[in-house]
Amino acid sequence: MGTLFRRYWIPALLSSEVPEKDGPPVRVRILCEDLIAFRDSDGKVGLMDAFCPHRRAPMFFGRNEECGLRCVYHGWKFDRNGVCTDMPSEPPDSLFKNKVTIQTYPTWEGGGIVWTYMGPAEHQPPVPDYELVRAPANERHASKTFEDCNWLQALEGGLDTAHFTILHNEKIGDRSFLKNYNLVAPKIEVEPNAYGYRYTGLRIVDEKQWVRAYQYIMPAQQQRAARVPQTLVDGGVPRVDGHFWIPIDDETTWVWNFFYSYTPGDTYDQAYIDRREASAGRGPEDLIPGTFKPTRNKENDYLIDRQRQKTQSFTGIKGINTQDFALQEGMGPIVDRSKEHLGTSDRPVIIMRQLLMEAIDAVLAGKSPRGCDPQTYRMVRPLDHFIDLERDWKVELSAELLAKY
Amino acid sequence: MGTLFRRYWIPALLSSEVPEKDGPPVRVRILCEDLIAFRDSDGKVGLMDAFCPHRRAPMFFGRNEECGLRCVYHGWKFDRNGVCTDMPSEPPDSLFKNKVTIQTYPTWEGGGIVWTYMGPAEHQPPVPDYELVRAPANERHASKTFEDCNWLQALEGGLDTAHFTILHNEKIGDRSFLKNYNLVAPKIEVEPNAYGYRYTGLRIVDEKQWVRAYQYIMPAQQQRAARVPQTLVDGGVPRVDGHFWIPIDDETTWVWNFFYSYTPGDTYDQAYIDRREASAGRGPEDLIPGTFKPTRNKENDYLIDRQRQKTQSFTGIKGINTQDFALQEGMGPIVDRSKEHLGTSDRPVIIMRQLLMEAIDAVLAGKSPRGCDPQTYRMVRPLDHFIDLERDWKVELSAELLAKY
Amino acid sequence: MGTLFRRYWIPALLSSEVPEKDGPPVRVRILCEDLIAFRDSDGKVGLMDAFCPHRRAPMFFGRNEECGLRCVYHGWKFDRNGVCTDMPSEPPDSLFKNKVTIQTYPTWEGGGIVWTYMGPAEHQPPVPDYELVRAPANERHASKTFEDCNWLQALEGGLDTAHFTILHNEKIGDRSFLKNYNLVAPKIEVEPNAYGYRYTGLRIVDEKQWVRAYQYIMPAQQQRAARVPQTLVDGGVPRVDGHFWIPIDDETTWVWNFFYSYTPGDTYDQAYIDRREASAGRGPEDLIPGTFKPTRNKENDYLIDRQRQKTQSFTGIKGINTQDFALQEGMGPIVDRSKEHLGTSDRPVIIMRQLLMEAIDAVLAGKSPRGCDPQTYRMVRPLDHFIDLERDWKVELSAELLAKY
Repeated sequence: MGTLFRRYWIPALLSSEVPEKDGPPVRVRILCEDLIAFRDSDGKVGLMDAFCPHRRAPMFFGRNEECGLRCVYHGWKFDRNGVCTDMPSEPPDSLFKNKVTIQTYPTWEGGGIVWTYMGPAEHQPPVPDYELVRAPANERHASKTFEDCNWLQALEGGLDTAHFTILHNEKIGDRSFLKNYNLVAPKIEVEPNAYGYRYTGLRIVDEKQWVRAYQYIMPAQQQRAARVPQTLVDGGVPRVDGHFWIPIDDETTWVWNFFYSYTPGDTYDQAYIDRREASAGRGPEDLIPGTFKPTRNKENDYLIDRQRQKTQSFTGIKGINTQDFALQEGMGPIVDRSKEHLGTSDRPVIIMRQLLMEAIDAVLAGKSPRGCDPQTYRMVRPLDHFIDLERDWKVELSAELLAKY
Repeated sequence: MGTLFRRYWIPALLSSEVPEKDGPPVRVRILCEDLIAFRDSDGKVGLMDAFCPHRRAPMFFGRNEECGLRCVYHGWKFDRNGVCTDMPSEPPDSLFKNKVTIQTYPTWEGGGIVWTYMGPAEHQPPVPDYELVRAPANERHASKTFEDCNWLQALEGGLDTAHFTILHNEKIGDRSFLKNYNLVAPKIEVEPNAYGYRYTGLRIVDEKQWVRAYQYIMPAQQQRAARVPQTLVDGGVPRVDGHFWIPIDDETTWVWNFFYSYTPGDTYDQAYIDRREASAGRGPEDLIPGTFKPTRNKENDYLIDRQRQKTQSFTGIKGINTQDFALQEGMGPIVDRSKEHLGTSDRPVIIMRQLLMEAIDAVLAGKSPRGCDPQTYRMVRPLDHFIDLERDWKVELSAELLAKY
Repeated sequence: MGTLFRRYWIPALLSSEVPEKDGPPVRVRILCEDLIAFRDSDGKVGLMDAFCPHRRAPMFFGRNEECGLRCVYHGWKFDRNGVCTDMPSEPPDSLFKNKVTIQTYPTWEGGGIVWTYMGPAEHQPPVPDYELVRAPANERHASKTFEDCNWLQALEGGLDTAHFTILHNEKIGDRSFLKNYNLVAPKIEVEPNAYGYRYTGLRIVDEKQWVRAYQYIMPAQQQRAARVPQTLVDGGVPRVDGHFWIPIDDETTWVWNFFYSYTPGDTYDQAYIDRREASAGRGPEDLIPGTFKPTRNKENDYLIDRQRQKTQSFTGIKGINTQDFALQEGMGPIVDRSKEHLGTSDRPVIIMRQLLMEAIDAVLAGKSPRGCDPQTYRMVRPLDHFIDLERDWKVELSAELLAKY
């Protein structure tokens, strides 16, 4: 699976983590690899091995100066492409300098994210071309959150559309909704395609079809829509929401969160962004300062309020993504899938696993995996819409599924 | 050894941990298994797998409602017998629901304790019938304490009667007691029987025989008596004291503590209970709030007071069971017995190990192990008595060894 | 490598850790072994197995009384040579007592340090005879610091002389020093001998030769000199400085720090000692109270000050040894040497590794390893001196390389 991940551009860090030229380098750990990111004197982001090739001193303490990161042990300096541009501890005539490089990975910035490609150069695809990275800066937002479990069970939670009306239900004075199968047992359709699949949860509410069409873009991205009227959760404005789930290592994950305007021209100010993040459980008050870790976490049982669970919300846990984390992390570092019992609602999970297995086989066979060609996904969108029962949503709403940028 | 433990009813949690019907579920970890306990709408305690059989979401966050525990991920609900009684995420006509159960274990309450049997149904013995569970509620008390080492070295400490007059000595202004072999090198008798063994430490004090007869009830219970006059430790009233040592996993243990009235009609109020617990080192002031962990623990060297050790008590550590924990936990997670040198005083330990090995063999041979038939132990009692030197304690005190309830 | 370490006398603890007769025993962990040290009634230091040979109770809680350490479990008592001198739990006529001993190691005190030899008795060399242990008490000082990585990468940092003018540079308003190869790429000479090697870094500063001759005394000691004029770091007085690096286990190390007067009669008061320790990053303010652990450590990135790094010091980290720790610990618990690229400046490291490999072979072949015979190193000294370019330092400064005591 690691080899497969290394065939895609993936988010490495937020652009805002390295805000200024020649500023402090930062640690990045993804795909079990320890890296250091720094914005060099040209404003470009370097992403390199966390350890100097000389004696493996930590580059984190290095000096970011004059287009390169200099190890403080013996002063060796490397540019963002890994070339050793200074080696003061060697005599000036030493030929040794030219024989040493440091491992680096290419980076590209878009959508407020520094992306990287960590695979073989000959297979490097074009840079990502999601609508997110084309949207104007004031119509989009990206953040990341630390999750304390394997990435796949987090992705499975993201692709699981059936839990939406159960886990995240915030009004349970009347528990009768659990008997409303039109609401809680959606008809689920999964349609594989060139980038992954589109999957749809169809529910019937107030004599309307409620259509929620999501996108799964391989290997680990989900797109969903938040549309007015939003009957069940926080009253929102039309917008595209989504996540990437990037392995830090086998037992921890960077959950990337993003949203962007559904309607060109609808811009977001900081107050809106904070409110939106807070409703998911990762607002300015919800993170341990100086980290990307939620304050409500497994150490404190997500501050579950049992009284609130009895009388108001299904979980008693505050924050939609906090609810997700409680379940996903609560499964343990890597869930034991030999003990699962998958039902009708689990088709998106089952098919995602099949696609990943198939993609691993493709890579092993020297082929290109699904989802790495930007042409396949660049015009893709999710939707969330109510439509009369007798209408065919795929016909009537097809334009909604096309990117506006 | 895990298989052997699963042939007995063992303490799982305190009844007071699930005080009310439909109250919050609680975590229980015993025999390396993660479980969830909840008191259902009938007032019965369910004890089930900590993970939902659907996608292994944690049942801890579940809703305890209408005679079952409902997983908050997709709303699947299970009753205390493991039957799936609701599955809202599946279409109403799905046959899948009847194919899914969750692992549960039978429970029974007695003596303020929720007991469970985690073995094969065909070998389930009758529920426990210790005098403790028959004693009136105001004549008994049970508590539990977390111990940070393997259960067996804790049990060995419990069965070791020789250390009593040494480790727990609180008056060492005059160290000459160490030369008083009548006090510190007791004559020890171990008498195996149908439930384990009775073992006796005989000391001579003030020209009297001091008889302390304990009971070892397999696999992991000790009973001892505290009798007036209590010459060495806290002046007590006649009472039966004891412990169960139940593995949480290989490296941690629930130490169950209990006592009950030696004389029917002698009742205990809360002040007495608190005082008694405090003298053992686990009173209301001695535990980390909200936990069963002692404040004086291996992280802080049990707050040993070296000055006090020099001048007053043998250890300088406060609390009799705290002294025990210091030694037992101080041996490391699992003591290396290849480096032991067992002496005369270690016969109870040696014979207990033999009985456990024999019981493991019995279970492997399809037989019933010692100590699981309540008839063998139900009338058992320990004693602690002074008697003239020329008297035969087994003749004169035999009535004391019989349960009063 | 453990077997090799057990052929030398090594520092076990500070004499000041067991200041008084019959005082509290202390824990010592070296070479992966848990030991207990105590100063007995004779004032001699015992160093014994941390666990009683009876039932492996922790001797740390033992009573240090009347020339022995008494286990508090059953009162067994052992003297500093491991003889069991009391066993109260056994009957007085028991022969068992004479059959039990506890593992002890010989100790010897010198230079404010309790030394031990943990190898086979037949190979025990004479006690250490470094000049440090012969210097008067008011002309020497020793301390120890906990380092959170393998001892070898710490020793490698100590033997690396090239980093001195780079890593520890505190004046980088003008970064041009990095181009001054006479300063930053010293000519390095390594001269193996009977105790390890002498190694020299030759730099040219202000048209003088700057000679820094260090000593590597096997297996894990470095000696260096601090001499006036000290042009680069804290203005010092002439003195010998050095370290021992003693494995606690594979992933942690006791770094022993020492210094003593270069000139007999130059004494140190506490204020000097504190100032000297503080400049290295381990002064009274720099350690977590009650421990030997620095307050600036890997948990807090050594409190690196990025602004200070940009404008004043090469690392932005305060304290010379703190700078060393940042790099050595930052490499991880055990550095992956398969990824190194060793250059001209790494000859001391390369040759030290060769000497250690050779010494391991010698021990396996039943021979004596380099550096265990005190005659080979007793008159050894480092030096740090400026001398005219045309002079031959080995001729002119040879007297400086001889011990004064």
